[in-house]
Amino acid sequence: MNVPAFEVHTEDGLARFMRIRRQTLGLCAGLSGEDLQVQSMPDASPGKWHLAHTTWFFEQFVLGHDPAYRPRHPEWHYLFNSYYESVGPMHARPRRGVLSRPSLEEIRDYRARIDEAMGERIARGVDATLAASIELGLQHEQQHQELLLTDIKHAFWCNPLRPAFGHASASESRSLPMRFLPGREGPVEVGHEGRGFTYDNETPRHTTWLPAHALANRLVTNSEYLAFVRDGGYEEAGLWLADGWATVQRKGWQRPLYWQEDLSSEFTLAGIRPLDPQAPVCHLSYFEADAFARWAGARLPTEAEWEDFASSRPVTGNFQESRRFHPAGAPHGDGLLQMYGDVWEWTASPYVSYPGFKPLPGALGEYNGKFMNGQWVLRGGSCVTPRDHIRASYRNFFPPHARWQFTGIRLGQDR
Amino acid sequence: MNVPAFEVHTEDGLARFMRIRRQTLGLCAGLSGEDLQVQSMPDASPGKWHLAHTTWFFEQFVLGHDPAYRPRHPEWHYLFNSYYESVGPMHARPRRGVLSRPSLEEIRDYRARIDEAMGERIARGVDATLAASIELGLQHEQQHQELLLTDIKHAFWCNPLRPAFGHASASESRSLPMRFLPGREGPVEVGHEGRGFTYDNETPRHTTWLPAHALANRLVTNSEYLAFVRDGGYEEAGLWLADGWATVQRKGWQRPLYWQEDLSSEFTLAGIRPLDPQAPVCHLSYFEADAFARWAGARLPTEAEWEDFASSRPVTGNFQESRRFHPAGAPHGDGLLQMYGDVWEWTASPYVSYPGFKPLPGALGEYNGKFMNGQWVLRGGSCVTPRDHIRASYRNFFPPHARWQFTGIRLGQDR
Amino acid sequence: MNVPAFEVHTEDGLARFMRIRRQTLGLCAGLSGEDLQVQSMPDASPGKWHLAHTTWFFEQFVLGHDPAYRPRHPEWHYLFNSYYESVGPMHARPRRGVLSRPSLEEIRDYRARIDEAMGERIARGVDATLAASIELGLQHEQQHQELLLTDIKHAFWCNPLRPAFGHASASESRSLPMRFLPGREGPVEVGHEGRGFTYDNETPRHTTWLPAHALANRLVTNSEYLAFVRDGGYEEAGLWLADGWATVQRKGWQRPLYWQEDLSSEFTLAGIRPLDPQAPVCHLSYFEADAFARWAGARLPTEAEWEDFASSRPVTGNFQESRRFHPAGAPHGDGLLQMYGDVWEWTASPYVSYPGFKPLPGALGEYNGKFMNGQWVLRGGSCVTPRDHIRASYRNFFPPHARWQFTGIRLGQDR
Amino acid sequence: MNVPAFEVHTEDGLARFMRIRRQTLGLCAGLSGEDLQVQSMPDASPGKWHLAHTTWFFEQFVLGHDPAYRPRHPEWHYLFNSYYESVGPMHARPRRGVLSRPSLEEIRDYRARIDEAMGERIARGVDATLAASIELGLQHEQQHQELLLTDIKHAFWCNPLRPAFGHASASESRSLPMRFLPGREGPVEVGHEGRGFTYDNETPRHTTWLPAHALANRLVTNSEYLAFVRDGGYEEAGLWLADGWATVQRKGWQRPLYWQEDLSSEFTLAGIRPLDPQAPVCHLSYFEADAFARWAGARLPTEAEWEDFASSRPVTGNFQESRRFHPAGAPHGDGLLQMYGDVWEWTASPYVSYPGFKPLPGALGEYNGKFMNGQWVLRGGSCVTPRDHIRASYRNFFPPHARWQFTGIRLGQDR
Repeated sequence: MNVPAFEVHTEDGLARFMRIRRQTLGLCAGLSGEDLQVQSMPDASPGKWHLAHTTWFFEQFVLGHDPAYRPRHPEWHYLFNSYYESVGPMHARPRRGVLSRPSLEEIRDYRARIDEAMGERIARGVDATLAASIELGLQHEQQHQELLLTDIKHAFWCNPLRPAFGHASASESRSLPMRFLPGREGPVEVGHEGRGFTYDNETPRHTTWLPAHALANRLVTNSEYLAFVRDGGYEEAGLWLADGWATVQRKGWQRPLYWQEDLSSEFTLAGIRPLDPQAPVCHLSYFEADAFARWAGARLPTEAEWEDFASSRPVTGNFQESRRFHPAGAPHGDGLLQMYGDVWEWTASPYVSYPGFKPLPGALGEYNGKFMNGQWVLRGGSCVTPRDHIRASYRNFFPPHARWQFTGIRLGQDR
Repeated sequence: MNVPAFEVHTEDGLARFMRIRRQTLGLCAGLSGEDLQVQSMPDASPGKWHLAHTTWFFEQFVLGHDPAYRPRHPEWHYLFNSYYESVGPMHARPRRGVLSRPSLEEIRDYRARIDEAMGERIARGVDATLAASIELGLQHEQQHQELLLTDIKHAFWCNPLRPAFGHASASESRSLPMRFLPGREGPVEVGHEGRGFTYDNETPRHTTWLPAHALANRLVTNSEYLAFVRDGGYEEAGLWLADGWATVQRKGWQRPLYWQEDLSSEFTLAGIRPLDPQAPVCHLSYFEADAFARWAGARLPTEAEWEDFASSRPVTGNFQESRRFHPAGAPHGDGLLQMYGDVWEWTASPYVSYPGFKPLPGALGEYNGKFMNGQWVLRGGSCVTPRDHIRASYRNFFPPHARWQFTGIRLGQDR
Repeated sequence: MNVPAFEVHTEDGLARFMRIRRQTLGLCAGLSGEDLQVQSMPDASPGKWHLAHTTWFFEQFVLGHDPAYRPRHPEWHYLFNSYYESVGPMHARPRRGVLSRPSLEEIRDYRARIDEAMGERIARGVDATLAASIELGLQHEQQHQELLLTDIKHAFWCNPLRPAFGHASASESRSLPMRFLPGREGPVEVGHEGRGFTYDNETPRHTTWLPAHALANRLVTNSEYLAFVRDGGYEEAGLWLADGWATVQRKGWQRPLYWQEDLSSEFTLAGIRPLDPQAPVCHLSYFEADAFARWAGARLPTEAEWEDFASSRPVTGNFQESRRFHPAGAPHGDGLLQMYGDVWEWTASPYVSYPGFKPLPGALGEYNGKFMNGQWVLRGGSCVTPRDHIRASYRNFFPPHARWQFTGIRLGQDR
Repeated sequence: MNVPAFEVHTEDGLARFMRIRRQTLGLCAGLSGEDLQVQSMPDASPGKWHLAHTTWFFEQFVLGHDPAYRPRHPEWHYLFNSYYESVGPMHARPRRGVLSRPSLEEIRDYRARIDEAMGERIARGVDATLAASIELGLQHEQQHQELLLTDIKHAFWCNPLRPAFGHASASESRSLPMRFLPGREGPVEVGHEGRGFTYDNETPRHTTWLPAHALANRLVTNSEYLAFVRDGGYEEAGLWLADGWATVQRKGWQRPLYWQEDLSSEFTLAGIRPLDPQAPVCHLSYFEADAFARWAGARLPTEAEWEDFASSRPVTGNFQESRRFHPAGAPHGDGLLQMYGDVWEWTASPYVSYPGFKPLPGALGEYNGKFMNGQWVLRGGSCVTPRDHIRASYRNFFPPHARWQFTGIRLGQDR
């Protein structure tokens, strides 16, 4: 693993720590203890649990490194360990919603207490190992910011009242033709490079061979996906992977997750809103992205193709900071657009290790590596990802049926 | 159905209405919005939902009788209808826990608003039909008081922190030998009699034939049930009904629901407490009650045997009003003890209709009749039942695997 | 238990033994080893398994009583024990269909070998205990004759080719009006009486109290049930028990099990045949029988009402011996018709023990008693029951969702 | 797709057709109709179904190309279509075991009839398109030979009698040290090359980049895997992928599928046999192969690494033709051993398309492409694969929990 930048600027580090931690709480501003208690499905967690688990992460992997450290509530360890088998057993994931205690107030206190201890710890100066754990904790916190938003969106959607999380900003997308831009063919280097933070699964940087290919200049829009729906895309077995077709049948899928039956409105974090035809289609499974691409006579890009394009572009786009919490239509312009932000882009690459991959040592080795089965890589971040969390080499991953994340499509082509 | 007493004393009726409604809120005094949000299993409901549903009941079946009545939140109808198919579709029962909105505060307002409207309605005077619906609504409210307590007990038990709902009162039970008292043989009348309130399922009063039989003078105790456990009761197929044995195997049952693995303490509404050897054993399924009876060389009483004994006894015992929220050891005395309160007593009678049974007309006919399959009758009320809710003819019913209610055993015998 | 008639006529006993055993094999005459291998659902068993299990029953409970007896294939004990926990563990019921070995030929040999041993044993003379076990084995054999036919019917129905088991005989039913005949009110004796064979669950004979009631003179016909279907019976929640309605929704029931979608033909043991409007409707669950009765403004009879009527009538009707293997229209005549044969009649009585019930001693006590939960009593036998197997006090039982037996409806009424 | 060799030698083609078809029947020589009727799990099919489906394949995709062709049993189309959605609906896969009709005899007749028609068709001469379909049908037939054996092995194992399919040949494996042989680094060509038959998923041949790596000279043995078991491999979460660990917990896995609890014998097609310590371990899931590799400080090879090694080696090994039907210890020798035959080798490569992949046109495009989700590639064939069915570029694929195929492990390493 690279040595993270955290320790270099102790001063900045502390400010950054506090800023990111506050950002998480800020997202909960309009939510009640009841809202934060709900677990709408096994894949999602209560908001309250996100607040506690991210705090536990610092307690466990930073403060706990000091042998003299004594947690005030050792019995919470079991509750807020997510999946780290090597640090002990844990509360069953689908049962997080039953934990009304500790209360939201106790968890806010917990956050404040740990933040204070972390502040003192950082002020004393940290070595490279600890700096790396703090940095990982902050990246982890940002991941859970995104999950907190996707989970509350799902919980609110499960409520027939369809409550709104926030207000919608006006959206005036304009149409932009889709064009395919050719990529490089031959050996290229992919994977994390340089001194910044990286997850272990982005390493080692290595050579891979790109075939002749091209990528679409922008994301697939709602109107394009609507054409697929209207063309009977969900009724035509030949467009789907066998597992996808079985899923469509079993779950009765007929449109993206949050589209209303009228095909002209959708549930958003601002409640039910008219569908913007030029905005990127969102909340699709891999199965739907793959079927759409086949219908369109194209395919999904591989993660290496995507990364080779993305690595030379600045990380700008519609992120959490825009506070839209919804994908937006492509800006006008030449070249590749919307590579970062808006929606995570499903790739044609299963989530597996890079050649020579070594997980982090110890319990943190469970962070990424043990999930390398049955999932597909997504790239580029979304409208609920913090801007400074994403980079060209970033690998997100979800199983092919997952739809509650902000996930969409960029098409690719053989050349 | 009998004409209920409600209308006879309008003045008392109003006071009683408000008292019972307040009693429900009073039970929630120590619970947070988060506590009241939790649904720990499909059979249980969030406390908040109980508060709203009982209110909806009055709005739907009393206020809604006025054609001019306009609900302020017609969209809540779908949320708080429990199972009345004839008044419209409803939110799926196992998904009640996702409803963080309306908030607890809104539901408290809802209660206050409906109580006010009910107060005005009652003050204007009600006819027999409406009085019957109000009375049913109050009885219904009392049933949900009990469910609110059993459901919060289950939710807290699912939390590894095992929080307490209230404080424990000291318990000093003394040992009392079990004796069998002979009952009447031949034709007897059972079912509701007189002018007081009755559910439809307690009617019509009718003749049934009792065989020669006897009933135990008191409930089975923890120490007696412990002897069954220690004798290998849960490992001996021959003691169990086939469905019971399959359930024991599938669920890994080895002791009553809330007993700790050490067999010397149990989870109560006051948290983990030592097991009182002389207190009635509690939180047993029908399967366990039946197996214990077989092991003990006895059987469960039928509901007619129970009722014939009970009908001549006053309704006194350890009820909700004692605020113990836990069964207590038998008082010393002759004759039948603990017939009312402490624990619901499983009977050997499947829950079916009495000869000539007619459900209530209209939607309220769904209250009891449609559940007459696959359940067993329980008698006598429990330590979380309001005292004025119970009577000799009262028929409670649950499926044979249910354990989260306060359920226990009184033995019977052939003579 | 009564002393069975078996020992009284040793000569006849042997002949009867051989006749009943041959009758089972005779039913398999047109079936291949492959047909007899199929298990179409967990509730059904392969025909081959029925042939082996009934044989095992004699080996286990008659021949095995001799301490010197040595089974040739002790390893088959595990395979062919159905549910007798007290004689050892057993092969999982839903997995009986995987047992291609022992082969059908080996099982025929097994039958022949055990029959020979039984012949020798009977010839040597048997005491009352052994006679009772032999008698029970023959009654058991006859039950499995019926199951063999219902199970092969289900297996053939699961095959899209819809093969026929036998040939259909011409059916020319004529219409007969339904009338209700009043029954006795007051105390009556029910349960087995006299010296003939009885299962333990028909005893002891005891007093019960009949309310004022009446029974329909004949079974409900296909045309009557069709009217229920056409009236939207399967779409109207108010007609159903809650469990029944949930089952209808979950399984998509819209008509009796073997009716074709056109509502004018049905699958029979003679293949697809036109629906005879005057023949009894068949292959209904308890839920459907109950809903139909409610729709018809009637109810199902209780088992005591049925038995009190039946006990004075001769056991004649359309049984297995007619080799129709299908219910037939009511003969013309006065009084109660079709009480025996044609279809098992669902009653309004849950299957529970009679007052003072004692199961048989030892393993045979598992025969009936342990199933007394969640099932309903059926009376009267069917067109696949052997005539000499049935009697007025006979209690059959199935869970409320079961439809693959020959089950139908006789209406009852309060008076 | 390459033009297959089939048409080049019409004479040989016919002989080959008949030989391969006869070979399938030959495998059933010792099996009864009952054996061939059993479906032991949804993933497996009855032997009879394999016999019919492979025949249907020729009828559908070769004979059916003639517009004048009329199938004798058009109703069988529905039964024997496996998963070709584009040629119509099909019988549910998990319900193949209920099809006792058509009988084995009818299916043998069906095979004879179609073989005769195919013989005539081939004799008349076939064009390239038809030749390709015949060739595909023969390859398909060979795949089902393997499945027939793995499925009957599973069916027999489900039978507590553990019957044997055939006789065991003596096995005297000797120990051979494991060594790692370095592979090539840099760009290599993989995928099918030349004129012989290929499945579409082996194409197009393309460049990929190999990292520095090495492969073990032989397969992992029973004794090596036993060391993993004894070292607590199945109890150590840290060795497993998260999905693998969840599977181990849920299914209670403690050893390879067919190993006996004593860890010294295993179920084989010759019945229970002592475990040969030097024979390759077999019937492992991907999860187990991956966990073993991690425990051993190694990893699984990628499919490209495997293919680059294999492509220069002759296709020799322990195949179906040896009639051992069980993997054998490695022969002595230098270099890579056991690359072909014995067991399919799990690779670290998810089953996805090659760059530029085009499925076959029409219904046959469903053969391979639609399964490219959630499966892993296996290479090299097994002891039940026909020798002339396999090649270096051959890609087999199964989901990570599958254990009933002859699957094992070759280790790889980073260099």
